[in-house]
Amino acid sequence: MRYLISFSYDGTDFNGYQSQPHKRTVENCLEEALSKINNKKTKVYASGRTDRGVHAINQTAHFNIEVDINEKKLVKALNTYLPNDIYVKTARAVDDNFNARFDVKKKTYEYVINMGEYNPLERNYVYQYNRKLGIDKINIAIKYLIGEHDFKAFVSGEDKRDSYVREIYEAYIKKDNDKLIFTFVGNGFMKYQVRYMVGTLIRVGNGKIEPEMIDNILKDEKYVKYVTITKPEGLYLKEVIYWFPQKCGIIAN
Amino acid sequence: MRYLISFSYDGTDFNGYQSQPHKRTVENCLEEALSKINNKKTKVYASGRTDRGVHAINQTAHFNIEVDINEKKLVKALNTYLPNDIYVKTARAVDDNFNARFDVKKKTYEYVINMGEYNPLERNYVYQYNRKLGIDKINIAIKYLIGEHDFKAFVSGEDKRDSYVREIYEAYIKKDNDKLIFTFVGNGFMKYQVRYMVGTLIRVGNGKIEPEMIDNILKDEKYVKYVTITKPEGLYLKEVIYWFPQKCGIIAN
Repeated sequence: MRYLISFSYDGTDFNGYQSQPHKRTVENCLEEALSKINNKKTKVYASGRTDRGVHAINQTAHFNIEVDINEKKLVKALNTYLPNDIYVKTARAVDDNFNARFDVKKKTYEYVINMGEYNPLERNYVYQYNRKLGIDKINIAIKYLIGEHDFKAFVSGEDKRDSYVREIYEAYIKKDNDKLIFTFVGNGFMKYQVRYMVGTLIRVGNGKIEPEMIDNILKDEKYVKYVTITKPEGLYLKEVIYWFPQKCGIIAN
Repeated sequence: MRYLISFSYDGTDFNGYQSQPHKRTVENCLEEALSKINNKKTKVYASGRTDRGVHAINQTAHFNIEVDINEKKLVKALNTYLPNDIYVKTARAVDDNFNARFDVKKKTYEYVINMGEYNPLERNYVYQYNRKLGIDKINIAIKYLIGEHDFKAFVSGEDKRDSYVREIYEAYIKKDNDKLIFTFVGNGFMKYQVRYMVGTLIRVGNGKIEPEMIDNILKDEKYVKYVTITKPEGLYLKEVIYWFPQKCGIIAN
């Protein structure tokens, strides 16, 4: 029986999502908990990885188990075995051909910056930039990212892929007192992509580059030198939407 | 030269405020940082202690140093030496007879409860009660705490003092989506007092006791059995106000 689960986690004390030997990762913890329920070593397939220090409000994953257990009890059993920095919200039985990674329609990421005074209570949850940013300029710049583009400039140079083309459906900022919240909705994001985009938008906001530079970077490789990464702790995987909400449908659009 | 500082901290990774040998405490960290600036072992006198797991948005303390340093540079130097879960906001030169503990006029504490779904990202910052509470009943009950009362029922049985009489000037709750925020303003709070008050108000909110029981508890020792404590992680020391704001005046009312 295949299940799709949605879950949240605090990335602070994990070495990222992906399994690593002798390291505390979200995947390791999930598989350990699930293996106890399924009485044997069981693999979990997430919608994608998140890096060290990155958080999830709604991450998703699928897995197969042979034990007979209803959705509600599965959620409860998982939360019993999981540490308190991971929490399973829902479980739903899905078709055997459903895939939590390949059936993703769109994903939403959020990035939160504190432009006000340093706050030790948020140090692992909000990037403590602690200076003002030019919101108007960022507002202009972020719009260039919307649409289908080759985002090669916004991934690490060592990240080799067949294609760096992705589509961003929505990209906007919202100001909430001293907080600046970036939202990106797209069909897929590559490793570090959101952090490179936000890092570069911060440079727009502090006047180091002009908003139009984002357009230049997307169009011409020679501008890649203006791209910079930002810290992981302000980043949240907020939502994963699937093509077939009627079937797996944890999070319908 | 005597200084009054205001500072915030994340109580999660400290064994409380007060110095303890071989333990990581806020006081130890402050004195270590200050001793580097003052070139000798230097004591710090806070407005009061906070327990393990309790946070501070605005804690205050005074100390004497002999080095010649202006207020701005003192703040900067302290933050350079302090770990990133403590942050000094302001420093102000004060009279030699000013005392951060004895000159307190009033203090404000907040306690935050999550009545919604468990959130792993808030587990150290908001008490995860994760059930609904009867707000109307708590609203009635909390009013009984306002005024001058003997709060002996709301401290630990082992807490021996000459007097348990304190005055609470304000006590109210505010709902913010699934969060319930308790605020208490008073001339002083004893160890565990706020946590005992909130713990007992939670029992009012979940129907275990009636709002009038708070009045009974304050008036008659035999009702002490209805008092219960709540967890530390939702508690914040929010503000310390002094009698002489014109002199030491970090936080004027």
